[in-house]
Amino acid sequence: MSILVNDNYQNLAQNYLFSNIAKKVKAYTEANPDKKVIRLGIGDVTLPLVPTVIEAMHKAVDEMGNQATFRGYAPECGYDFAIEAVIKHYAAWNVELGMNEVFISDGAKSDCGNITDIFGDNEILIPDPVYPVYLDSNIMNGRRISYLAANQENGFLPMPEGVEKKSYIIYICSPNNPTGAVYNKEQLKEWVDFANETQSVIIFDSAYEAFIKGDYPHSIFEIEGSRTCAIEICSLSKTAGFTGTRMGYTIVPEQLVCSGTQLNKMWNRRQCTKFNGTSYIIQRAGEAALSEKGFKECLDNIAYYMENAKLIADVLDEKGIWYTGGISSPYIWLKCPNGMKSWEFFDYLLNELQIVGTPGAGFGSQGEGYFRLTSFGSREATQEAVERIRKGL
Amino acid sequence: MSILVNDNYQNLAQNYLFSNIAKKVKAYTEANPDKKVIRLGIGDVTLPLVPTVIEAMHKAVDEMGNQATFRGYAPECGYDFAIEAVIKHYAAWNVELGMNEVFISDGAKSDCGNITDIFGDNEILIPDPVYPVYLDSNIMNGRRISYLAANQENGFLPMPEGVEKKSYIIYICSPNNPTGAVYNKEQLKEWVDFANETQSVIIFDSAYEAFIKGDYPHSIFEIEGSRTCAIEICSLSKTAGFTGTRMGYTIVPEQLVCSGTQLNKMWNRRQCTKFNGTSYIIQRAGEAALSEKGFKECLDNIAYYMENAKLIADVLDEKGIWYTGGISSPYIWLKCPNGMKSWEFFDYLLNELQIVGTPGAGFGSQGEGYFRLTSFGSREATQEAVERIRKGL
Repeated sequence: MSILVNDNYQNLAQNYLFSNIAKKVKAYTEANPDKKVIRLGIGDVTLPLVPTVIEAMHKAVDEMGNQATFRGYAPECGYDFAIEAVIKHYAAWNVELGMNEVFISDGAKSDCGNITDIFGDNEILIPDPVYPVYLDSNIMNGRRISYLAANQENGFLPMPEGVEKKSYIIYICSPNNPTGAVYNKEQLKEWVDFANETQSVIIFDSAYEAFIKGDYPHSIFEIEGSRTCAIEICSLSKTAGFTGTRMGYTIVPEQLVCSGTQLNKMWNRRQCTKFNGTSYIIQRAGEAALSEKGFKECLDNIAYYMENAKLIADVLDEKGIWYTGGISSPYIWLKCPNGMKSWEFFDYLLNELQIVGTPGAGFGSQGEGYFRLTSFGSREATQEAVERIRKGL
Repeated sequence: MSILVNDNYQNLAQNYLFSNIAKKVKAYTEANPDKKVIRLGIGDVTLPLVPTVIEAMHKAVDEMGNQATFRGYAPECGYDFAIEAVIKHYAAWNVELGMNEVFISDGAKSDCGNITDIFGDNEILIPDPVYPVYLDSNIMNGRRISYLAANQENGFLPMPEGVEKKSYIIYICSPNNPTGAVYNKEQLKEWVDFANETQSVIIFDSAYEAFIKGDYPHSIFEIEGSRTCAIEICSLSKTAGFTGTRMGYTIVPEQLVCSGTQLNKMWNRRQCTKFNGTSYIIQRAGEAALSEKGFKECLDNIAYYMENAKLIADVLDEKGIWYTGGISSPYIWLKCPNGMKSWEFFDYLLNELQIVGTPGAGFGSQGEGYFRLTSFGSREATQEAVERIRKGL
């Protein structure tokens, strides 16, 4: 006689990727206090919030301190002004969304984790390598998981060809974390067609859409047929530097019906029951980030990061090292030189060049032999790291 | 062949309580545009955030706009400064908490809903009437639910006596929403003893603890033996008027072990996987609300609401109407006069006195014949409502 716990948690890998990295870096810096270590491993932004967002938050804070303008409980699924800001953002790509199709939240990670609530016992199709939340949140629910191998041959963009035709929950992240690879319209159309044919549901993570250059789709809803088979989860973390500010949104089209049930209504019920809305102040920040003025400022920050990416990409080109990403993504995913394994190359970069990156093997078995560098560092640090690679690698 | 949805959602009652109220009020005001309707039904605060909180948020916003002080991803389970503020708040009741036992979140409703993730298929014991999230979040997980009848005979404080001795997840909310009834130490000790004896887990909702007057426990952890059987979920929504600002916290003691597993570690894993931390700005707001100066200001707001409660209680005393709450709680739970049912009394109050309250039947079957009034209105509106009751009821 005892309370039962969720046994599925036992099946989670003890994911020590970032704590292992931290331990190795700590050991190195303690042993070599005179060496300057440069961190190009982080997936976190470093530039401050843009002026328009700061101004909007000061105004909202003042409103909360004033009897006449104070706001209590927000609508669970978002204030109209925030939803309208998202809808306007999507209109730039000719995607039309309804007011009840956009759900404002405290971030894409919450939504990615919580979306599993509304589904039954389906087979899950997850790219490998990929952002670990897709895998872990489904393991926690006891789901059967199959992998889509992403590799150099397919440019780290796995396609439906060869996948057994049955119903899956399919996770797609484009531009991809960690590989930076980005699907074009034709490729996403193949996935949408596959999903409609097999009555699958695509969960599309567009967290890096603001980094896209050129004619790649920012949203799955740019693809014909997607409204009957896709949910999109996005975040302002990378678009507007909101990693510590926290706002995201999930789009569930009205036409998305599974087993006779509208998923839009289920997600609404889930959020109304287990969530009490995003902070008013933060929703005003999000509205400001997506305004014409605010978004222009955000794009300036993104341009800064992408100049860092270009510096990294250029030196890899010089060295003849294969990579994806770095053009429509802050991430550069490279093949470790000389056939090194991911952690071997990590140790090499740390010990020889005092540069910290992220071993690709930490994102899935197909990541072995690959390595992630990010453009979120400062210009100075990135330049210095690039010089060390140029001279030392 | 199709994606399966979570069928348990079909077992949710279509909870039209507040939308039914809104519809009836709308119909009445449209038919009677000259009548002034007073709302004493809301469970939402109306006073603005206190000056110390506003100041802290302005400072945090400025930090986020400055390269040198900008913050990216927060620790998933909270910044040390916020955790320390909670620990200090609990020290006032001689409750000692460890840094890794306090989990900062965006609110108690999220934690209440999400805590079900870490448990297996247990029997759930839920008071009736009660805050609907306990019930709905467990229905969504397909759990077996038993009810603890709260009624006039037990002062709306059901006790373990007579409950079959087996392991349950037991929900306790004290001071209670919606009844305002509050357990004393001896009563909570009985529940803790019952839980330890039956290897049950108590989920203790202390969202209204700041309203307590007198020697009632603010926390389940004031009770001996509670660290092996209880989780506590609390919120700043009512303590500091954060309903639209959003911060809460959950306490999972290290000693709480079920089926050989530390629940603290499971909740940590759940939050690290499916949550990305509470906004830095909001955590600074929470720290300020729990500071000596900020909390004093919050208590002034609570005193204002409790003077409203006193006005309502006095007129009910005059009329000889039975009620609980109103002393250590912003809620007054009254027996509908003349044997009226909850919705009958709702219609009567709306049509005859133009006062809106909440029918008790909306919180569970045992709520039938009862009615909730709240003290969160303005002084003027509360006074006018009380006068109408004095003259008209």
